[in-house]
Amino acid sequence: MTQSSSPQRVVVLGATGSIGAATLDVIARSPDRFELVGIAANRSVSALADLCRTHRPSRAVVADAAKGEELKEVLSGSGIKVGAGEDALVELATMPADIVVAAISGAAGLAPTVAAIRRGGRVAIANKECLVTAGTLVMEEARRAGATILPVDSEHNAIFQVFEDTAAEAVAEVVLTASGGPFRTWSKADMAAARPEQALKHPNWSMGAKITIDSATMMNKGLELIEAFHLFPITADQLSVVVHPQSIIHGMVRYVDGSCLAQLGTPDMRTPISNCLSWPARGPAGVEPLDLVKVGSLSFEAPDVDRFQCLALAQAALRRGEGAPTALNAANEVAVAAFLDGRIGFLEIAATIERVLNCAERDHMLVEPKSLDDVAGLDAYARRVGTDAIAGMAGTGA
Amino acid sequence: MTQSSSPQRVVVLGATGSIGAATLDVIARSPDRFELVGIAANRSVSALADLCRTHRPSRAVVADAAKGEELKEVLSGSGIKVGAGEDALVELATMPADIVVAAISGAAGLAPTVAAIRRGGRVAIANKECLVTAGTLVMEEARRAGATILPVDSEHNAIFQVFEDTAAEAVAEVVLTASGGPFRTWSKADMAAARPEQALKHPNWSMGAKITIDSATMMNKGLELIEAFHLFPITADQLSVVVHPQSIIHGMVRYVDGSCLAQLGTPDMRTPISNCLSWPARGPAGVEPLDLVKVGSLSFEAPDVDRFQCLALAQAALRRGEGAPTALNAANEVAVAAFLDGRIGFLEIAATIERVLNCAERDHMLVEPKSLDDVAGLDAYARRVGTDAIAGMAGTGA
Repeated sequence: MTQSSSPQRVVVLGATGSIGAATLDVIARSPDRFELVGIAANRSVSALADLCRTHRPSRAVVADAAKGEELKEVLSGSGIKVGAGEDALVELATMPADIVVAAISGAAGLAPTVAAIRRGGRVAIANKECLVTAGTLVMEEARRAGATILPVDSEHNAIFQVFEDTAAEAVAEVVLTASGGPFRTWSKADMAAARPEQALKHPNWSMGAKITIDSATMMNKGLELIEAFHLFPITADQLSVVVHPQSIIHGMVRYVDGSCLAQLGTPDMRTPISNCLSWPARGPAGVEPLDLVKVGSLSFEAPDVDRFQCLALAQAALRRGEGAPTALNAANEVAVAAFLDGRIGFLEIAATIERVLNCAERDHMLVEPKSLDDVAGLDAYARRVGTDAIAGMAGTGA
Repeated sequence: MTQSSSPQRVVVLGATGSIGAATLDVIARSPDRFELVGIAANRSVSALADLCRTHRPSRAVVADAAKGEELKEVLSGSGIKVGAGEDALVELATMPADIVVAAISGAAGLAPTVAAIRRGGRVAIANKECLVTAGTLVMEEARRAGATILPVDSEHNAIFQVFEDTAAEAVAEVVLTASGGPFRTWSKADMAAARPEQALKHPNWSMGAKITIDSATMMNKGLELIEAFHLFPITADQLSVVVHPQSIIHGMVRYVDGSCLAQLGTPDMRTPISNCLSWPARGPAGVEPLDLVKVGSLSFEAPDVDRFQCLALAQAALRRGEGAPTALNAANEVAVAAFLDGRIGFLEIAATIERVLNCAERDHMLVEPKSLDDVAGLDAYARRVGTDAIAGMAGTGA
């Protein structure tokens, strides 16, 4: 609601994904507050062109260099400056802007996100890989450049909203809530036989396939613990997870005085996105107001790490530190892909990751990555070992 | 946890009550952070003397002037400077200190609280009457003196913790939670026949008789709405009440972006008191950490203003404004006293208040009080009319 004299200039990296769509929606609702100056997508040229026609940014970039000509053609005469490839993406990420929303998923998002951070200023991070695989490096870059990292993830944004910088030393615990996913009440035997289409049914959020499987294994929450560790000045032991099936409380910070501050809301990504775009003020986001009487009740359970071993593996990787989270993340990616392809069973996702981490430890691969190249090397190693492990399991899956 | 170079000097007005006891407990836990410099009580000399021997303040005052000699005697040789009567109380409230905890209940607390506010600096307000009967005047004094008002009440302290000054214009709603009291699930017929000892059984908090009855009628929540209206930059229409029987969420602020920030905690007054004493930092309070898994679930209901007419009367008085809240509060005090004495039935508490407000409106008594004398005049008028109304009802009670 705070009216600044001129609108905030926003760059959206990953405009055609679900975070991108929600971001453009928030921006379009408040043309007096926000101005979309640049957008980028991985490879969906026609979707990107549609967004350009609707939202009229001054620049548009497609990350896939091979798609550059196609984008140029469909946007010819629009007056929009078009680019393609990684360099153009980095250039877009560092163009004059007040805030960059970094929502290109996967490894492709790493370079432009880091470029945006190095320019200083505000960066809203929705790319999980940045913090999970290169958290120490990324946060060091942010400190050096004086950048402000704003977390877009609903859980981290919730914690960001109630984490008091004036009382950081008085934080006792940071609690991430988890819906528990589609298998929250399933037996381990049923989970062993679970098919991809069963794992893809998330109770509260509509998301991509990879992240929905991560929610079913609870690896998603494990990766979020690793992100939270980097985002907030806390130790691994101060982080915990509570299962909260209604997904109304998104995150909490418990202080030594007995106060537990929480952010609640209807599950809708426009709330955390709007929070990042407007921070430290707030503005309307088009989200249905929370009505707790209509919700009726909120429930809480301890996570079952016997059935959800991915969560335990992530917690162990977080405590192990150095390269362990990078290896965990890469192993998880190949394992989830293998599960979605029907090559391994649901519980073998965790088994694959465990095997990769054991191999990496034995091979002395889990040292602290000192550069993004180190991260890429460890990532490739873990994928290779994971792929081999999956090949060895083949045929045992569901 | 923030260590300042010298401890904060604290004055506690109303040291022998439950808020006083909790305050002294918080102070005693952190002698490096707090120094108790002065304490006062209404009239319990022996309890006050005990606290003096344990906590060693430099000054002690008993509000009842007739008890001054007794206090002097029991503390002779202690080195503690002793005073008695209203002037001594005001002197104590304005002695050199970093924070004054204003916890003397009832009308007796008004003068020393206002004196503490006029000196500027921080005042933690636990006296409800100040804001309910003279909120406009008291907040004007605070603004003029540059005083910081810190609310001790668990609900208001919760809201204070999550009310963002940087986003005040983006506040959509301030929600006070209510336990619903002992009669939450009772029928209106059963409530009509309720005896004082039934109304005195509060499910979650251990408090004095007056406030426990106010909780049973939900007038307590109505008075808190009036307090919240004065404490925060909001309109009457932005205030709402939700019944939450577990009393774990103490208050919430909903913003236009869909975020609803809440403060949760084990019901223990040491949390809000510690928050006030340490603000804007935080420190340990000896409170059992909230364990939501152990709590299991939190539920929410709309308040039933047909059965809890005191809440509706308070909401109407808040919207009516000017002198209405002062008259409401005085009428409620005489009605609750009459119910506790067995002179009227439970539902006649609301009937009494309604009659007083109607009379006051008819008599043009509900103009804005311009001074504390005006407040006292209106208060006396309402008590007189209320007492007459109760006499007229006599014999119809349970």
